Amino acid sequence: MVQYKDQKLHEEKVFKDPVHSYVHVRDQVIWDLISTREFQRLRRIRQLGTTFLVFHGAEHTRFNHSLGVYELMRRVVDDRFQGRDEWDDNERLVVLCAALLHDLGHGPFSHAFENVFQLDHEQYTRAILLGDTEVNAVLRKVSEDFPLKVSQVIEKTYPNRLVVSLISSQIDVDRMDYLQRDAFYTGVTYGHFDLERILRVLRPYKEHAVIKLSGMHAVEDYIMSRYQMYLQVYFHPVSRSAEAILNHILQRAKHLYMSNYDFDIEPRPFVPFFTNNITLEDYICLDESILFTYFQLWMNERDEVLRDLCTRFVNRRLFKYSNLNSEDDVERYGKLQQLFAQVGIDPMYYLVADSTSDDFYRPASTKNPIMILMPDGTLQELSTVSPIVDAVAGKMKVDRKIYYPLDVIEALEDEALRDEILTLLHRK
Amino acid sequence: MVQYKDQKLHEEKVFKDPVHSYVHVRDQVIWDLISTREFQRLRRIRQLGTTFLVFHGAEHTRFNHSLGVYELMRRVVDDRFQGRDEWDDNERLVVLCAALLHDLGHGPFSHAFENVFQLDHEQYTRAILLGDTEVNAVLRKVSEDFPLKVSQVIEKTYPNRLVVSLISSQIDVDRMDYLQRDAFYTGVTYGHFDLERILRVLRPYKEHAVIKLSGMHAVEDYIMSRYQMYLQVYFHPVSRSAEAILNHILQRAKHLYMSNYDFDIEPRPFVPFFTNNITLEDYICLDESILFTYFQLWMNERDEVLRDLCTRFVNRRLFKYSNLNSEDDVERYGKLQQLFAQVGIDPMYYLVADSTSDDFYRPASTKNPIMILMPDGTLQELSTVSPIVDAVAGKMKVDRKIYYPLDVIEALEDEALRDEILTLLHRK
Amino acid sequence: MVQYKDQKLHEEKVFKDPVHSYVHVRDQVIWDLISTREFQRLRRIRQLGTTFLVFHGAEHTRFNHSLGVYELMRRVVDDRFQGRDEWDDNERLVVLCAALLHDLGHGPFSHAFENVFQLDHEQYTRAILLGDTEVNAVLRKVSEDFPLKVSQVIEKTYPNRLVVSLISSQIDVDRMDYLQRDAFYTGVTYGHFDLERILRVLRPYKEHAVIKLSGMHAVEDYIMSRYQMYLQVYFHPVSRSAEAILNHILQRAKHLYMSNYDFDIEPRPFVPFFTNNITLEDYICLDESILFTYFQLWMNERDEVLRDLCTRFVNRRLFKYSNLNSEDDVERYGKLQQLFAQVGIDPMYYLVADSTSDDFYRPASTKNPIMILMPDGTLQELSTVSPIVDAVAGKMKVDRKIYYPLDVIEALEDEALRDEILTLLHRK
Amino acid sequence: MVQYKDQKLHEEKVFKDPVHSYVHVRDQVIWDLISTREFQRLRRIRQLGTTFLVFHGAEHTRFNHSLGVYELMRRVVDDRFQGRDEWDDNERLVVLCAALLHDLGHGPFSHAFENVFQLDHEQYTRAILLGDTEVNAVLRKVSEDFPLKVSQVIEKTYPNRLVVSLISSQIDVDRMDYLQRDAFYTGVTYGHFDLERILRVLRPYKEHAVIKLSGMHAVEDYIMSRYQMYLQVYFHPVSRSAEAILNHILQRAKHLYMSNYDFDIEPRPFVPFFTNNITLEDYICLDESILFTYFQLWMNERDEVLRDLCTRFVNRRLFKYSNLNSEDDVERYGKLQQLFAQVGIDPMYYLVADSTSDDFYRPASTKNPIMILMPDGTLQELSTVSPIVDAVAGKMKVDRKIYYPLDVIEALEDEALRDEILTLLHRK
Repeated sequence: MVQYKDQKLHEEKVFKDPVHSYVHVRDQVIWDLISTREFQRLRRIRQLGTTFLVFHGAEHTRFNHSLGVYELMRRVVDDRFQGRDEWDDNERLVVLCAALLHDLGHGPFSHAFENVFQLDHEQYTRAILLGDTEVNAVLRKVSEDFPLKVSQVIEKTYPNRLVVSLISSQIDVDRMDYLQRDAFYTGVTYGHFDLERILRVLRPYKEHAVIKLSGMHAVEDYIMSRYQMYLQVYFHPVSRSAEAILNHILQRAKHLYMSNYDFDIEPRPFVPFFTNNITLEDYICLDESILFTYFQLWMNERDEVLRDLCTRFVNRRLFKYSNLNSEDDVERYGKLQQLFAQVGIDPMYYLVADSTSDDFYRPASTKNPIMILMPDGTLQELSTVSPIVDAVAGKMKVDRKIYYPLDVIEALEDEALRDEILTLLHRK
Repeated sequence: MVQYKDQKLHEEKVFKDPVHSYVHVRDQVIWDLISTREFQRLRRIRQLGTTFLVFHGAEHTRFNHSLGVYELMRRVVDDRFQGRDEWDDNERLVVLCAALLHDLGHGPFSHAFENVFQLDHEQYTRAILLGDTEVNAVLRKVSEDFPLKVSQVIEKTYPNRLVVSLISSQIDVDRMDYLQRDAFYTGVTYGHFDLERILRVLRPYKEHAVIKLSGMHAVEDYIMSRYQMYLQVYFHPVSRSAEAILNHILQRAKHLYMSNYDFDIEPRPFVPFFTNNITLEDYICLDESILFTYFQLWMNERDEVLRDLCTRFVNRRLFKYSNLNSEDDVERYGKLQQLFAQVGIDPMYYLVADSTSDDFYRPASTKNPIMILMPDGTLQELSTVSPIVDAVAGKMKVDRKIYYPLDVIEALEDEALRDEILTLLHRK
Repeated sequence: MVQYKDQKLHEEKVFKDPVHSYVHVRDQVIWDLISTREFQRLRRIRQLGTTFLVFHGAEHTRFNHSLGVYELMRRVVDDRFQGRDEWDDNERLVVLCAALLHDLGHGPFSHAFENVFQLDHEQYTRAILLGDTEVNAVLRKVSEDFPLKVSQVIEKTYPNRLVVSLISSQIDVDRMDYLQRDAFYTGVTYGHFDLERILRVLRPYKEHAVIKLSGMHAVEDYIMSRYQMYLQVYFHPVSRSAEAILNHILQRAKHLYMSNYDFDIEPRPFVPFFTNNITLEDYICLDESILFTYFQLWMNERDEVLRDLCTRFVNRRLFKYSNLNSEDDVERYGKLQQLFAQVGIDPMYYLVADSTSDDFYRPASTKNPIMILMPDGTLQELSTVSPIVDAVAGKMKVDRKIYYPLDVIEALEDEALRDEILTLLHRK
Repeated sequence: MVQYKDQKLHEEKVFKDPVHSYVHVRDQVIWDLISTREFQRLRRIRQLGTTFLVFHGAEHTRFNHSLGVYELMRRVVDDRFQGRDEWDDNERLVVLCAALLHDLGHGPFSHAFENVFQLDHEQYTRAILLGDTEVNAVLRKVSEDFPLKVSQVIEKTYPNRLVVSLISSQIDVDRMDYLQRDAFYTGVTYGHFDLERILRVLRPYKEHAVIKLSGMHAVEDYIMSRYQMYLQVYFHPVSRSAEAILNHILQRAKHLYMSNYDFDIEPRPFVPFFTNNITLEDYICLDESILFTYFQLWMNERDEVLRDLCTRFVNRRLFKYSNLNSEDDVERYGKLQQLFAQVGIDPMYYLVADSTSDDFYRPASTKNPIMILMPDGTLQELSTVSPIVDAVAGKMKVDRKIYYPLDVIEALEDEALRDEILTLLHRK
């Protein structure tokens, strides 16, 4: 009888996917993993967190993305690598599972949530793979050590470096899927690059998936897409404003709970997070529908800060923002904190500074630079071959912003203080 | 000073839309409506209900669609109708508002929800427009009777029939948006028709928006798209299976509540619906995040039926289905009900029959057929001019299916009964 | 040493194709065929004849299309059929060659040219395959009887009916390519159907390539695309007007030559066609650049008819058209001929009637209907399964038109005769 | 009665365009210009010269492109500029005509042809506008000085600099059309940028069309597209190889003619060019169909060089190429010339060196840099605002290549000389 790891579905299943046209599943293992409770949970975690508040099309979830990453990996190993000398087809299943499951540990609105409660989604991915879960049960049917192997690939500790590089490098299937997918759903024209070409020129080469020189221009295009997506979409200030509010809602709720505030309805799903006493089950149970439900409940709480922040988030009344220059920010920010306190706006919750700097291609500072396979069989790091990548590599664009509730400030009665604040915010 | 109804934003606002490229807003009224709590709530109501469980791309919401309908209407009145004799530009604002707000009263998973609690989303749209809401406050700033006017356009009772026909006819902007949008997000290739062409040949003509003959083939294509979308997407049996389960969850929860069942956590947001004592605020507060939250809570309830159905819905373990022929369905269905009861599977919750019949183009049975403007200035109903529409018009395709938990049936220990059931389900 | 038929290129060659993304060539035979003079000649024969005079985007050639048909066939046999029981992989090469070369015998502006000189492009395809040509030399390197085999596949006399059906049936790769390609280049929105889906559900089944039921809706869409492309593009009256003029240029030139008219420059490449004494070399030498060159030369000929018709064609001053009803056409057409002669416009060259009737799906009248593979393993003809195809199958839309030089008629000095003519043309 | 310049067509005409969806014409002047013989001639001049020999999809003509440039200009002036303070709508017609007619003087395979015969297409554009042509007749109906005005806009000498900048700047409608159009027809994925966005943020500002800061990222994307199109498409070495052969055909034919060679058929259309005694009519009569016709005739000429080069061009048997480094090129090239002569391959016709350097964005060296309109109303040159453009601006990539008939060299009998040549070509 055929072993579980080799079992094929009676008939190939296809998922219609708007980005890759179709996602194909033939392996029983993959099919069973998709059906697990933990994987289905990803349907309730948005791929781009608060971005849908800026780009209304971006309502897609991590479920959507995870299937896409799996499909790209399948195309690489089944259509490109299979049969090549440097590829060991015994690694096929572990790498497909890793692709499918790499985002399993993401919580609701990942960054803000992890930030406030000091969590790490990678640790939870590992916990779900290795813990008492449906996913683990499926993986264990392959072999006792298979869950650990999948986990190692995702954590980049797997011995076969080629396998790791497929899922975590400067040009891995994860990034290729999300750039195209996020561009598709937001509707921006950036984010398009010749994915088919890149897959076609990808070659297994010792410890790396490398790119043949003939595909270098498609890779240049990919680098530029990435740059534009970071600047235009991922670092959009309105989305960062929403994230700041979200962050403060969670901080305020925790603060209240720890101060024995009497919630109108007990925030049961949050208690383990407030008290830092989290079981795997607590974590898995949480999703964005639960956050939205509680945020709406808290819109009726007595605590004014919590009530206001939740109302802002749910009804999209976000903070406005101004630029912050590095030179004067300490002083100006300090002055603003003082003035906010003076007029009765708690700066801890209502004055936020953040900065982004683009995660651009940086050959020197990365373990997995993009390697180009030259016609003579040697490898060259991308920026040494491409003048355009060389030109942009390592360029840094820092964007510092300050966020605040402009509506509240404009409604201040003390005209002098109001004007002083607005001036400091460069709004006068 | 310029009146509120004529106020323009200092600078036009654009929303990036993946389907129509951009949504443009210049009117202060439209901007203010988008910012209301009731409109923002549409972000938490999926456009296609349970369809995302089949087409994973279809995670878009009614917020997304409503902006699209508004934008199409704007293009019709601002780019096409403005300046034409038969168009009164004073109707511009009411028709834009109606386009934007036409889905305002939709509840979570509209059909199932309305069905169980005997609600009507159109009545709630009216209630939100005319009641004590943020939307109403904005509309009233235009004029005292403006909320009523908008409501009349949506309800098709507005005196200017041309205005009504733009939003509710066989080829209105609502349908044109959702066909294209749903095709885009599901990823199916159907649903594409030459929208730009149709908008270009649309003409105001007495009580109708009519189509110039030169655009007839684009309309034929639209009719075919619609047919395919109904068959392939809207009536997909897996989505209907999920809807059946959803329906039964709500029925079971109501039944338990009315039987004084002691819920582990009080289903507070549902109580008004169970007891049919619903305020507008109760209705507005409800959204799909709350349903998903409670369904997850109910996965831990003591009641086995509620627990099981919720688990099925949340983790996507849906009912399987078989075809039902009209001839024998009464008898076969009755027999199945009896057998289900006999083996301990409550047929009230675990045996569902439904049928769909396509909402195809039917010139005779409709008040607003598609009228073609002939070169000689006369009007002809579409199917009298188009042989292909004539061929398909009025064709009816009925699809009757029966849904059941195949996993439970296959696990029955009594082999004879199990086989009898499977035979009746045409699975043997 | 590896046989010629099995020789692979050192590295796969790819052609960038705007319709299918890439065309892939690995076989030395295919590469050598593409490089032949006879295949390169297809670069100078437009795919859609005179259509570029209506849809300016449609400047693509039969070279372009032939590569596309080859690529689709390659995807069918290499990606879909290979390894299936009912498919004999020894037929791979013959079917790829037939796909690539099926249009080899097309002359410039095929229909008009064949019409006037009573030629048959299929006969010339055969002649090029079997005659003393570069193509023949390549094919003979495979085996002595290989040119004949390729020819038999194209002529549908090849013993393996499955192979024939791939290239000539109601849903063969030839049609699938041209519908999509012509839609792409004309820019019309019709012509799009889910090609990937159709390829995926295609199965070898005895003598047919059949379609699995699960792909039926994609086939319905294909049928509708075809209908729209015929009506909107292939039968466009302006393109037919251009074709009528082209037809008359060739007839006039032949008439003049046979009447010993003294051409200013000898129409050397045409002489064999005028005298019906055509060698294969004469045929191969002809292409559309030569026709355009001579038409321009003839714009300076003394013969007024030839001069005028060439000027009309080259500078796009086409005939206008009116509808012709079947009932009265004999009488009306006769009357017009008489009046044209009376006012000095030669009706033989300046009054044209033609009719088109759509080449729609007709299950009864065709040898190769589309067969659907049902889940129970039986075959059903498409229209018996699809209500929409059943509705349209066999529907006939005849379009009769009359073409004439409106500019000349309007310039007639005799007002009464002019008006009589215009009235008969339904222009008054 | 309405003046000719203001006459509108009874009904707007639309051309279906695969790139811009539709081209709209309402002005009688534009319609009449499109119908002229000189404009229709552009249907017989390919947009990308020899590129179709590499990218088979690129069979589109300058007719196709010219309509596209007109349409973009129409969208700028009618949809964007109309009504703005800085825009004088009296300039509308002249700028539309200039957009439509800017390529009127292009000859067949422009660069090679101009090169050999020392022509300048801009001078011929002017000649057609101002000479005794149909185009001139239409323009003169507007006003006596109108042809000159159109010509001045195209030649950048028109007084209103804003008008000039719309058609000739670093981001004019000409470039925006050809980048998108050429990408569309070649099928490459580069060349896509958010055209709609750029048009939307374009503003008339004194002497420039400037870009609002909010659209800067779309412009960055445009700059990158341009870079990729130059490197991947416009400078493709295979296309340059074909151009080299074309160049040599024309040089050889001229040389033969001037040496009183007795052509089998007199090369009548070329004589004025050989003897540098060209009338406007001679120029207009020439197109690519005539070149292809004569090249085919010359495939049978006695002169071996002419015969061979024509065969190579028509049947696509192009020269192969190797890289040429600047350091050693003089010496190596000289040595190769000598060896070619020694083995009997005329280096004048069979050894070609060329180099390309990308026409990248260079703010300093250009009169019309891209200016960004800052929120404070000031202008900034693009590269001072965009770090990515700054990084690439002025970067130069020179590509030097040498072309030769590898087939002939490989067939040399003298093994030592053959190897010496191949070594110098870096093929050993």
